Amino acid sequence: MSEPGSRRLSAGMVGGGEGADIGKTHRLAMRLDDRYALVAGVFGRDADSARRLAGDLGVDRVYRDHREMADAESARPDGVDVVTIATPNDSHFELARTFLRAGISVVCEKPLTRDSQTSAELIATAESTGAILAVPHCYSAYAMVRHAARLVRDGALGDIRTVVVEHSSGWASTPLELGDHRQARWRTDPDVAGFPSVLSDLGTHALHLLRYVTDLEPARVSAELTTLVPGRRVFDNASVRLTLSNGAPATLWASMAATGNEHGLRLRVFGEKAGLDWRHEDPQHLVIRDRDGAATILAHGMSSLSEDATRLTRPGMGHPEGFIEAFANFYADLADLLRARRDGTTAPTRELSIPTGVDGLIGLQFVEAAAASHALDGAWVDAASVRPMAGV
Amino acid sequence: MSEPGSRRLSAGMVGGGEGADIGKTHRLAMRLDDRYALVAGVFGRDADSARRLAGDLGVDRVYRDHREMADAESARPDGVDVVTIATPNDSHFELARTFLRAGISVVCEKPLTRDSQTSAELIATAESTGAILAVPHCYSAYAMVRHAARLVRDGALGDIRTVVVEHSSGWASTPLELGDHRQARWRTDPDVAGFPSVLSDLGTHALHLLRYVTDLEPARVSAELTTLVPGRRVFDNASVRLTLSNGAPATLWASMAATGNEHGLRLRVFGEKAGLDWRHEDPQHLVIRDRDGAATILAHGMSSLSEDATRLTRPGMGHPEGFIEAFANFYADLADLLRARRDGTTAPTRELSIPTGVDGLIGLQFVEAAAASHALDGAWVDAASVRPMAGV
Amino acid sequence: MSEPGSRRLSAGMVGGGEGADIGKTHRLAMRLDDRYALVAGVFGRDADSARRLAGDLGVDRVYRDHREMADAESARPDGVDVVTIATPNDSHFELARTFLRAGISVVCEKPLTRDSQTSAELIATAESTGAILAVPHCYSAYAMVRHAARLVRDGALGDIRTVVVEHSSGWASTPLELGDHRQARWRTDPDVAGFPSVLSDLGTHALHLLRYVTDLEPARVSAELTTLVPGRRVFDNASVRLTLSNGAPATLWASMAATGNEHGLRLRVFGEKAGLDWRHEDPQHLVIRDRDGAATILAHGMSSLSEDATRLTRPGMGHPEGFIEAFANFYADLADLLRARRDGTTAPTRELSIPTGVDGLIGLQFVEAAAASHALDGAWVDAASVRPMAGV
Amino acid sequence: MSEPGSRRLSAGMVGGGEGADIGKTHRLAMRLDDRYALVAGVFGRDADSARRLAGDLGVDRVYRDHREMADAESARPDGVDVVTIATPNDSHFELARTFLRAGISVVCEKPLTRDSQTSAELIATAESTGAILAVPHCYSAYAMVRHAARLVRDGALGDIRTVVVEHSSGWASTPLELGDHRQARWRTDPDVAGFPSVLSDLGTHALHLLRYVTDLEPARVSAELTTLVPGRRVFDNASVRLTLSNGAPATLWASMAATGNEHGLRLRVFGEKAGLDWRHEDPQHLVIRDRDGAATILAHGMSSLSEDATRLTRPGMGHPEGFIEAFANFYADLADLLRARRDGTTAPTRELSIPTGVDGLIGLQFVEAAAASHALDGAWVDAASVRPMAGV
Repeated sequence: MSEPGSRRLSAGMVGGGEGADIGKTHRLAMRLDDRYALVAGVFGRDADSARRLAGDLGVDRVYRDHREMADAESARPDGVDVVTIATPNDSHFELARTFLRAGISVVCEKPLTRDSQTSAELIATAESTGAILAVPHCYSAYAMVRHAARLVRDGALGDIRTVVVEHSSGWASTPLELGDHRQARWRTDPDVAGFPSVLSDLGTHALHLLRYVTDLEPARVSAELTTLVPGRRVFDNASVRLTLSNGAPATLWASMAATGNEHGLRLRVFGEKAGLDWRHEDPQHLVIRDRDGAATILAHGMSSLSEDATRLTRPGMGHPEGFIEAFANFYADLADLLRARRDGTTAPTRELSIPTGVDGLIGLQFVEAAAASHALDGAWVDAASVRPMAGV
Repeated sequence: MSEPGSRRLSAGMVGGGEGADIGKTHRLAMRLDDRYALVAGVFGRDADSARRLAGDLGVDRVYRDHREMADAESARPDGVDVVTIATPNDSHFELARTFLRAGISVVCEKPLTRDSQTSAELIATAESTGAILAVPHCYSAYAMVRHAARLVRDGALGDIRTVVVEHSSGWASTPLELGDHRQARWRTDPDVAGFPSVLSDLGTHALHLLRYVTDLEPARVSAELTTLVPGRRVFDNASVRLTLSNGAPATLWASMAATGNEHGLRLRVFGEKAGLDWRHEDPQHLVIRDRDGAATILAHGMSSLSEDATRLTRPGMGHPEGFIEAFANFYADLADLLRARRDGTTAPTRELSIPTGVDGLIGLQFVEAAAASHALDGAWVDAASVRPMAGV
Repeated sequence: MSEPGSRRLSAGMVGGGEGADIGKTHRLAMRLDDRYALVAGVFGRDADSARRLAGDLGVDRVYRDHREMADAESARPDGVDVVTIATPNDSHFELARTFLRAGISVVCEKPLTRDSQTSAELIATAESTGAILAVPHCYSAYAMVRHAARLVRDGALGDIRTVVVEHSSGWASTPLELGDHRQARWRTDPDVAGFPSVLSDLGTHALHLLRYVTDLEPARVSAELTTLVPGRRVFDNASVRLTLSNGAPATLWASMAATGNEHGLRLRVFGEKAGLDWRHEDPQHLVIRDRDGAATILAHGMSSLSEDATRLTRPGMGHPEGFIEAFANFYADLADLLRARRDGTTAPTRELSIPTGVDGLIGLQFVEAAAASHALDGAWVDAASVRPMAGV
Repeated sequence: MSEPGSRRLSAGMVGGGEGADIGKTHRLAMRLDDRYALVAGVFGRDADSARRLAGDLGVDRVYRDHREMADAESARPDGVDVVTIATPNDSHFELARTFLRAGISVVCEKPLTRDSQTSAELIATAESTGAILAVPHCYSAYAMVRHAARLVRDGALGDIRTVVVEHSSGWASTPLELGDHRQARWRTDPDVAGFPSVLSDLGTHALHLLRYVTDLEPARVSAELTTLVPGRRVFDNASVRLTLSNGAPATLWASMAATGNEHGLRLRVFGEKAGLDWRHEDPQHLVIRDRDGAATILAHGMSSLSEDATRLTRPGMGHPEGFIEAFANFYADLADLLRARRDGTTAPTRELSIPTGVDGLIGLQFVEAAAASHALDGAWVDAASVRPMAGV
């Protein structure tokens, strides 16, 4: 990857206060390629703690709340180009809407909002002000996932016949929420995370990965939501069948209680000519299996990969890149869009780019359809995908 | 494993003529531990070919059909102790019934018959004559599968919370049946294999593996059957949800068209305390994952394994054993039962032994329930398991 | 693999009494494909135990010692076609010589004898009587090893540039010999196993695998022999450098004390165009890596493999075969040679067949050269390979 | 990892101009945790290109050469705290000496200099001015390598009995240097890289990894250097035996021409009680094998790991970290030392910290001893390690 031009983008953040992992990950990802300077933020309700963090981060403009921030930043000539929202799910809508209305681009953690209607409203708001609304389904930004998506689009697999995706983590296979595990507490609180929590949190990542690589949309879903850890107040496990837009069957398994699993994100696509297999436990490789059963393992950094993958490679062959780098790839691609908006230039046109509000919306529709199917004992429910994933 | 005592059991075979793979596998498995002598058989309709094969195999008593064989063998003082039925599915019932009625024990390939009623009839017939009816779900006879079943029974996983099993092979991901691939032709012929062919063939193996290791039964199923290879006349792919007898959710995926896969049999069990993972591509290892995410790989032949596994070990640590050995384990355990019957002695009592007619029946009930669920667009259907798997 | 013709070969065995693993493995391997009937043997010095074992095995002709056996069997019209010698190393020469002189073919465990001179004498004796002298370096009989050897011969790797082979087992990483572990006791007794025990036992397997796959011979060696387990009376670890006949450097590591390892046999060959990698822990796969770094995993049973591999495949793709099957492949190829000798016909000509006395001799020369180098503090010593490995 | 305090360290760089990968990697690593601001540098001889890069990087103080830079920076009150030297090997000594003499700390790529004498001189210079001299053998900064080192120090392996380390890359298995591959050209130029190039480049990394994890030093070496790619002007392959300071034998294989390999860095340590295995292709896992053969895979981010590992974990379990993160760990630990020096405070005392000049020197001594041994046809040569690796 080339290093950035001289003028960094100005970034803000809401959430990500002390002890909040996801905010820190966003900051690591923004920083890696030096395309962003974090200059403004709202870092939680405790003023002392917020000031301390801001000091550590070198952030000068600390606001009490998002409204004050949106007003002030949109008024400045050097106001932030983008704000990252890294707060629990129930606040996403209000926060994102405020910034988008102020014409400020937004990176909003998934699930985008708590329902598809509000997600659609955010998209409309973004369109009306020209702001960018990006959703960090960052697994799609791994070089080898991009290469997988390229292979599918280039016909290397032929027609897609079935897809099996799983995001079955073991992180919450014990009742962590009874202790002081902050993330476990809100992710198992139905009022904050919603009762289909595992689908909102992990299922939407799995769905996006499936959609991103296959270029197919969910047409209908049938879901069974279950609770594996006794006493838990949300569903922590979900088995979903999908019919994809080309008629192919697919299954999606999401779990936060698959005892012993690491991250458990894996995508397998079976086509007429070949199958592909990608696992987040080994993200720098991609396996292609031909009809005879030979498995070819492609490695990150190989000189023969597609431009979609090689442009996302930093030190090169033999030097593993991980989650932060994938997240940074998301931010790097976003930077191209933000700069074009800022400078009034044209962004590079890429078939394979980053997820946006539409992807967030489709994720919400998926969660809603799955919840509806569950209520109907697994009956098929329309996935109601409004429109195909838009390349940005 | 110790080597056999002096007097071998006398075995017969129906089917397994020239070019029939499964019959050959049965013979390899019977031969390995030298507990059986193949002395009688019906080897297809072509008399010349049958005689030639019998000659090659050193089989003296060649019959024209099973009735003649059953009559003659049951009349001899040295008649066969057991007959292996290795013919296409539609003939199983008639063949097995004939031998069982004649008091001759039977090894019958799965699916046991074409419906649960006839399977139940076979079980009753076997009970009435005291003959043994065994069904070679031989994956359960791998040493490491036995060890897995032992660990579950000993509580190493705690309560079972969810199970994911798949038998997703790629063997028929092209329309092989249009050529002269014999097995492909009958397995995709609904009149011979039944329309839910993939479930009868592979799904029943997956189900048995799940039941064997977890000691749980299917309570209800919800199934989606699909055809991945255009033009195929049977279902070649199935996604099944199960609720197990302890209330835990499970999923079972069976496919004969998962492009690029080898055998694709894998069982993952997630419990309160740990998870386990076994793959047929690497049968000599078993992975146990603890709640913290550490994965311990146990290897065939390790001195610390349970007696259930070590008694099934031939050359020892570092010397892989494969499918034939697992099949031979099935025949070795069966031999203990057959000898006890022959000699009027008591067979060793083992909690973990071989699958019998009841397992075949439960397999059929599963296929029927899945087909019924499919007809109801995936609605839940009782698995109607008559009784728990009986240790023999 | 096709099943055998009607008349089995008659086999005898010396050694392999009760509790002797290697003898049992030979019997399993002979039995699997039904090409041999074990009809005669010397099963240890204890007459009762010998008679009991013979009874269990159905062996009628039990002899007190090898001389009696050689005399009697060579005098019978239906005398044994081959005798397997499965005794500790120090008896090999005397036993093999006796049978070969009597015109009886021999399968002799490695190391063939205790020095290269006696090995050369055995070869000469075999030639003089026309008997076959085979040495079961059976790892070369795995289908995927045969395929590897085929790929090298067909130029798929280009010129071989370097080879790395290791047989680093952990079986004796504790002082087992202090207990009652029979094999450990004689393998660590310099009077029985020789002081470079690890090279005789494991190093010769590794060397043969290297030679078999690459078609190259050792030209010179430099060795360091060490003892990892304190107090052990033989060398249990060896690091050897070789210069191969084409000038390429190679390394060979043999250990019986590599704590935690299973069998630890692995061969890596690096050529001008590609590299290959085979591990005994996963014998049904072969990895080929191209210059760009793509790794292709070929699987046992794939339809596109060479005839050298496919003819050694029993149940087919997805059904792992293991050590016993590889050993059976050795015996199957040997059977073709023995029958031709017995029947006066011509054996099939195969470039890739089984190891013979010459291979045993080259193994001995290697051990001797390594020991000599060790005595010279690792100085290079000629491997003195008399002649290239002969296809039989 | 916690995020940095407010005041960043000031950093400079020499080398790492446009197209130089290693300089870019240093910058990524410095940036990730936000502990450094790159403020000064010499970016190659072409003034335009240097200015352009400086502009992109936001570096204000661009110098024509290192002398000018050392003078100016040491004169400024806000002069750089550290300079990274990322130039070809032959310039290291002069550059590092200049900055160290000026009291400026240095990160110098390996090999530290071209011979041990000059390396020792650098160490002395650093000691005389109190400047820190660090050498980025950054593989030792992976969390799981740190955990491995901790396990060894805590006695989990018992006495170390043998070590096998390899850094066998395939990057230069074709004659890349004949084209315009910049790194290949200087790394195969004996005047720049030295004739034992593969040992200087890769062998020193392998040696350091061995030393870091085992806490053992090389006592003597025996080496064979070879050239695998015909026509190449340096050695591209090396097989080295070592006797370690506790008497244990070890082998080290370094190659830049192992066709098809990715990075090929792997360390295996075999102890009295257990073995460990770490591979750079999968850096987030560490395998521990017990004497019975059970292999336990520990994963980056597990809550039960040692503090040495957990303090180097960013997003946590299931989120792979790669080469840049390891490099950033090196810079993070260095930052603690640099700040203490800058602020006159006491740096945290850590048994497991970063490699320094002494490690660079021991690497050079190793290369020299190996070259001497090679000249003596592999005779043993003293490794002449001056003193044990110093914790900083």
